[in-house]
Amino acid sequence: MGKITKVSPLAPDAFPDLPVIEGVAFSAAQAGVRYQGRTDVMMARLAPGTTMAGVFTRSATRSAPVLDCQAKIGLDSADGAAIIVNSGNSNAFTGKNGVVSTRAVTTAAAQTLGLPETRVFSSSTGVIGEPLPHERITAKLKELAETLDKGAIAAAARAIMTTDTFPKGAAAEISIDGKPVKIAGIAKGSGMIAPDMATMLVYIFTDAAAERAALQAMLSELTDVTFNCITVDSDTSTSDTLLLAATGASGVKVDGATTAFRDALHGVMLDLAHQVVRDGEGATKFVEVAVTGAASDADAKTHAMAIANSPLIKTAIAGEDPNWGRVVMAIGKSGAAADRDLLTIRFGDLLVAENGWVSPAYKEADAAAYMKGEYLRISVDLGLGHGKCTVWTCDLTHGYIEINADYRS
Amino acid sequence: MGKITKVSPLAPDAFPDLPVIEGVAFSAAQAGVRYQGRTDVMMARLAPGTTMAGVFTRSATRSAPVLDCQAKIGLDSADGAAIIVNSGNSNAFTGKNGVVSTRAVTTAAAQTLGLPETRVFSSSTGVIGEPLPHERITAKLKELAETLDKGAIAAAARAIMTTDTFPKGAAAEISIDGKPVKIAGIAKGSGMIAPDMATMLVYIFTDAAAERAALQAMLSELTDVTFNCITVDSDTSTSDTLLLAATGASGVKVDGATTAFRDALHGVMLDLAHQVVRDGEGATKFVEVAVTGAASDADAKTHAMAIANSPLIKTAIAGEDPNWGRVVMAIGKSGAAADRDLLTIRFGDLLVAENGWVSPAYKEADAAAYMKGEYLRISVDLGLGHGKCTVWTCDLTHGYIEINADYRS
Repeated sequence: MGKITKVSPLAPDAFPDLPVIEGVAFSAAQAGVRYQGRTDVMMARLAPGTTMAGVFTRSATRSAPVLDCQAKIGLDSADGAAIIVNSGNSNAFTGKNGVVSTRAVTTAAAQTLGLPETRVFSSSTGVIGEPLPHERITAKLKELAETLDKGAIAAAARAIMTTDTFPKGAAAEISIDGKPVKIAGIAKGSGMIAPDMATMLVYIFTDAAAERAALQAMLSELTDVTFNCITVDSDTSTSDTLLLAATGASGVKVDGATTAFRDALHGVMLDLAHQVVRDGEGATKFVEVAVTGAASDADAKTHAMAIANSPLIKTAIAGEDPNWGRVVMAIGKSGAAADRDLLTIRFGDLLVAENGWVSPAYKEADAAAYMKGEYLRISVDLGLGHGKCTVWTCDLTHGYIEINADYRS
Repeated sequence: MGKITKVSPLAPDAFPDLPVIEGVAFSAAQAGVRYQGRTDVMMARLAPGTTMAGVFTRSATRSAPVLDCQAKIGLDSADGAAIIVNSGNSNAFTGKNGVVSTRAVTTAAAQTLGLPETRVFSSSTGVIGEPLPHERITAKLKELAETLDKGAIAAAARAIMTTDTFPKGAAAEISIDGKPVKIAGIAKGSGMIAPDMATMLVYIFTDAAAERAALQAMLSELTDVTFNCITVDSDTSTSDTLLLAATGASGVKVDGATTAFRDALHGVMLDLAHQVVRDGEGATKFVEVAVTGAASDADAKTHAMAIANSPLIKTAIAGEDPNWGRVVMAIGKSGAAADRDLLTIRFGDLLVAENGWVSPAYKEADAAAYMKGEYLRISVDLGLGHGKCTVWTCDLTHGYIEINADYRS
């Protein structure tokens, strides 16, 4: 089993140097919501004319801030906007108090920034079921407004961390019709990660200009192949929020047909999604699971997620054991169509199994050597059709249990 | 976290004293399929007139012996029958060799015992994807046949263990119309346990007499509320097999309407199912999850299984942390109907949450003290309807990872 370090061994070497996005400024403060001696609240101020799009958890027990964001995200507005995020307390399952706290934060922020309350989006992440001490956040709004800085996105990324072991950022700079367009995003999340978003907060900013409906369509579609294709532990959070803000400052208008922008946004989202997996609680291996030849894309995703969520496979990976029999087991249990005798399984480029049995070319020693890598790829071809899906996960280690058996203590 | 001992801390004090079932005899031998220095193959010989019923894994990649049993179980026969089980190798995903090995064992056993080959049922449990050295088993058939003993059921229970830390047995003795009727069962299983049976082998014997169809109906129905309501790790095996043999030696005819028999069989099945959970890999807590007030029984099971399979809840239980927020999370993600503000959650008798928030009566210290127990009960009322379901699981500990990261090594 790989060594569990304080910072994930799969973390990037450093937080990337994110470009300034004209039309957005950031600040962070120490509100003491739960944590001491670190920032725990961030503000992002968006210029008038900014278009917003969002994707949220589908949990039936979603939090008050999520419900509030969902009610606001579909409104068109030429006013500016703001995003306020706190860590340490998710304000989820806090009954009527949850609504009161969310409203207290958004109303006070609107007043401080001179915005309509409908243009203030808030998120809360952390422990579920404890009242949010919102007055600690509202007490910091003036400081946050006064310290807004175009270059402070890294500070914002740090303020939203909970069990994350590193701040997460990604960016792209492209040229459209000869004009530069920039995208920069930050994310938090490391546990309770599964499709339908998980405990993940993601904020992406671009200076492209876009209609709200087009921006929303692009975001929703790309979420399906990025954030909804990662899993750490199959658990889904009550608080997941992904916001995309297009300030328009570049003067370049984009929509779903703007391939260069779409590809760049896809890249930023995939990068952030992979960073969340790389910070999976206790993770020592980053694992790509690629399923092809399924009866449909939906079946391919069912199989891929069955493999990626199987505790037996994830512990085998932690133990660097090429236990491909457990891959067969996961395919069998997934419920999607499979024919045992048509399966082909590869670990990296190594052909492991075909025609319903271990390949004659398979050498356990080669597979065992492959499993020692930090990046692993398990690919399965079902031999049934053209459905395909790729998902990403990590291994299941002692570190996961250490983190989660004591999170509230 | 509770101490992880070599034998599960949740194990019964001793293997129970199981009654002799007239019409069945057992033997066990050391075939050296994989393990050395222990028995790894068992035989059960059933008298002529025995009725058989069975339930099997629904995995799409089920093993050759399972497919063989399924083809035979629906046949009526007045001949006797036999059950041959080996541990150490599951003969699953072994391609055409799997069929050859299964047939080799059943044909040789049929010859040795003077039975038609269609009356020999075999199971294999252990590593997936390696060829079964069936000649090691067939070499022991004569010894097995010669040592058959009505009183040797405990030896049979030991021979089928894999990662089990204790052999599992349960029995009931009832009186029907003044005549005694006996039921005795054995089981193996500790990981890869989830609904649709899991890596579980269960063999139950009774001296009741029953029509095959009636016996099968009773077994299928009771499986749904016993073995299909337990989960250790949400993984489902390719080899699960549950066989019920009614020898008829008591002279008492039973069917689904024989309440006393049905209840006794239910009790034996539930006892064995609970023992499998109690031997859950690395388990230190036995957890009952009871969901009531759901829109339907199916919804209740979906919620109960979402709670019982959540790695975040299972690690919190290992850490003795009354983290009821994660219960809310699991209900939210399950996909079944729920209204956050109608939820009631209890840990044991402690009212934890109601009306969408923590109960005013809730004291964290009381809940923390409750979590130190070895038997825990989480109950959730959804406040929506009359659907209900109870399932059983265990906690997720370092022990699970230790066992599964190194199983093949």
